Amino acid sequence: MSATPPPNENQQICPIGVIGTGVMGASLARNLARNLEAPVAVFDLDEARVRNLVEYYPGESLVGFSDLKQFTNALSDPRVILLMVPAGRPVDAVLESLEPLLDEGDIVIDGGNTHYLDTDRRVKWCGDRGIRFIGMGISGGEQGALLGPSMMPGGDPSVWEPISPLLEPIAAKAPDGTPCVALVGSGASGHFTKIVHNGIEYADLQLLAESYALLRARGMSPGEVAEEFSKWNKGKSASYLLESATAVLTATDPDTGEPLIDYVLDEAKGKGTGAWTVIAGAEEGVSVNVVAEAFFARSASSSRKERAAWVGTNVLGAPGEVDASTDQIRDAYLLARLISYQQGLNLLMEASKENGWNIDLANVVSLWRAGCIIRAGFLEDIMTIYKDSPTEPSVLTVYPFLSQVKERINPLREVVASASLAGIPIPALAAALNYQQMMITPSLPTALVQLQRDNFGSHTYERTDKPGNFHIVWEGDLQQVES
Amino acid sequence: MSATPPPNENQQICPIGVIGTGVMGASLARNLARNLEAPVAVFDLDEARVRNLVEYYPGESLVGFSDLKQFTNALSDPRVILLMVPAGRPVDAVLESLEPLLDEGDIVIDGGNTHYLDTDRRVKWCGDRGIRFIGMGISGGEQGALLGPSMMPGGDPSVWEPISPLLEPIAAKAPDGTPCVALVGSGASGHFTKIVHNGIEYADLQLLAESYALLRARGMSPGEVAEEFSKWNKGKSASYLLESATAVLTATDPDTGEPLIDYVLDEAKGKGTGAWTVIAGAEEGVSVNVVAEAFFARSASSSRKERAAWVGTNVLGAPGEVDASTDQIRDAYLLARLISYQQGLNLLMEASKENGWNIDLANVVSLWRAGCIIRAGFLEDIMTIYKDSPTEPSVLTVYPFLSQVKERINPLREVVASASLAGIPIPALAAALNYQQMMITPSLPTALVQLQRDNFGSHTYERTDKPGNFHIVWEGDLQQVES
Repeated sequence: MSATPPPNENQQICPIGVIGTGVMGASLARNLARNLEAPVAVFDLDEARVRNLVEYYPGESLVGFSDLKQFTNALSDPRVILLMVPAGRPVDAVLESLEPLLDEGDIVIDGGNTHYLDTDRRVKWCGDRGIRFIGMGISGGEQGALLGPSMMPGGDPSVWEPISPLLEPIAAKAPDGTPCVALVGSGASGHFTKIVHNGIEYADLQLLAESYALLRARGMSPGEVAEEFSKWNKGKSASYLLESATAVLTATDPDTGEPLIDYVLDEAKGKGTGAWTVIAGAEEGVSVNVVAEAFFARSASSSRKERAAWVGTNVLGAPGEVDASTDQIRDAYLLARLISYQQGLNLLMEASKENGWNIDLANVVSLWRAGCIIRAGFLEDIMTIYKDSPTEPSVLTVYPFLSQVKERINPLREVVASASLAGIPIPALAAALNYQQMMITPSLPTALVQLQRDNFGSHTYERTDKPGNFHIVWEGDLQQVES
Repeated sequence: MSATPPPNENQQICPIGVIGTGVMGASLARNLARNLEAPVAVFDLDEARVRNLVEYYPGESLVGFSDLKQFTNALSDPRVILLMVPAGRPVDAVLESLEPLLDEGDIVIDGGNTHYLDTDRRVKWCGDRGIRFIGMGISGGEQGALLGPSMMPGGDPSVWEPISPLLEPIAAKAPDGTPCVALVGSGASGHFTKIVHNGIEYADLQLLAESYALLRARGMSPGEVAEEFSKWNKGKSASYLLESATAVLTATDPDTGEPLIDYVLDEAKGKGTGAWTVIAGAEEGVSVNVVAEAFFARSASSSRKERAAWVGTNVLGAPGEVDASTDQIRDAYLLARLISYQQGLNLLMEASKENGWNIDLANVVSLWRAGCIIRAGFLEDIMTIYKDSPTEPSVLTVYPFLSQVKERINPLREVVASASLAGIPIPALAAALNYQQMMITPSLPTALVQLQRDNFGSHTYERTDKPGNFHIVWEGDLQQVES
């Protein structure tokens, strides 16, 4: 039964329908209704919910349904349906209900935080049934969904023509006016891109937390740290997360009148996507060590029993005083942040190659420029580099970033050293530094790892002076054999 | 057709049979034949391979088969079959062929490097068919398999009585004479334990490589580093991997007569198990950041294109001189190694709880004391701690380790600081330090992560001064609501 008077059974008037009226679904439906010159169909099994939504915003042309057949009948051809239901089993359940009601060529977009392997499976399942399935990452939270999110759809290129006129008007706009939505690649690439986006978000949040700890250790109050962060948040260094950090650090606790941050429990939680980035990096063999440290820092912060076991052990306290200057801390943060973005992009590039997704990194970076949580000023320059050189192995080796690396690597070294001596945990800053050191060190000691692997497991090694795989017979007079 | 004269069809004489005659399978079969007072059945589809094996060792009572029915008929009741075939599809293929030939209660042990989720599935598949399936990690390489490996079986407790008389005689013996084999827990816990074992192996190898790099940076030759390592390799600090590092660092290159290590390519490879540990840590939310850094260091070392992109960029070189003394480097290594073992044990404990495996950590540590790659002197003390206190949240907070932490944390800080300034990558040492710093820091800046998550995603936060989940309405005068 429809929650508002339904259109005639055969009247197809809505260019898009949204299934699910949670915070994100409702906000996106309203965004669509405001920006398309046509009504938007909204479906929820809960009739009261749909009615409430439609009645609460009478000026926005939403048409509510709680009957799936009437909902699909209200959609123009080809149908475009945006699923905004919880990731996992609910998506499959909706697809199964929808399937008999859809026609060849209809398009279903899953806008949830879905694991890309589920998307992969659904692309095939739908493909077998003539349905075009799109996994689309959406970032920006509730506000973004309503006012302009960044959207990362992936799927068959044929789908872009019918969906772009629906999505471009509701997307965030980059500084040059480009809508922050584009088909990032084929298959499950959209949801994979969102996973990487969230991994970078983990890294940046941890880097900010570490920078905050260092500035506090220099004697600054939360408000003073906020002031310092707001200085960093300028021009190409500006980012949404710096802005958000500034905002929360100036917040006064309504209970005590003191800085709120000082009353917040230090156990950071997470949803699945941080873990998924680490897992994807491990599976692809691409270092995302900054994300990994950020993820594991949250785990460590939440390991109550182990942390409790250290209370009272009186392990030698460190001085806690940080020698590094605020400028050095700023430079360290900015370089480490760049490194973690590069790692995320490396992972995207490798996964695209591995899965044949044809991800266009310039496109991805373009749509991260606004609307999403990891939007930042320097993405403009990264986009330009990938536009000129789509398989650039490291944007940090190219103008304008190379000079930034040169300028900031010593401050990063100083900050890591000084924090280490002061006993302040900086796992993500250290990971970024060590990754960068590995990249610029011509000869790494991992040669020893490989030679030990040959010693106890006959795993062979390569040589620096000639091609081939070699093994030492580790007995007697150590013969070298080529394998 | 059997490769050696088969016993009568109904004559069951062998207490155990081995399927697969690769390096590990053949060595284990020979080890069994030497130590059991009965012949050992060996099966391989390749008749010539089996015959060669049996004929090459006429004094060892191996009975060869290339007919699976004859092989199973030669086994006494209940049958115990050890699969030593490549992990993955081959294991399923053998199980499918074996199933019609087995009787209720027969036991199949998979001794391969199998992913624990595959084992989980096979435990169920076999259970439905009355077969008792055991996933067993084996460590020690070819030599260990022949002379005494460490074995980590997991499965139904009923299985221990029939298999222990077969496995105990062939296992490595701990210093107190205990065989290094025990049922570590139920279900897939055996293969999970092997994954964690290998993760710790990754961590220790990387820590050794970093220590090596630091000693080289102090001007020491490979031989001098080997000498230094051999000093560390004493008493409770002694370990197989230190011994192996010493051995490979003294190796002379047969081609050039110079130290071999200087001609080994620095791209470290890996098999799946390092990645699996990182993935398991990410899935369980347990920090294994030292393993993660070790794994990603191998990835980074092998990222040829990105490393090549830095060549010639002339990024500011660091002095490369290390201030830390050799004693400080030793202390840093020893503490970091302990931390990475603790992380692996944390992961085992959490996975056991999550999966209901009832892993007895004292048991696990006991059988890592000899035969396996990560065997080390200090495991004796760790075992004792878990015997007294099976759910001890951190052995490092307990005698005798607490005093080692107190003694070595400052050297670890100094080494990380000095390496950072010198531009020497030490991702695993830094990860261990930062993890330890997090454990002893009463108030972590992850509070900021959580507060930012509430700011942009309404994820709520907890407070230090009262229970509950809170959210700030981040508009206007910042109201706090309890959720």
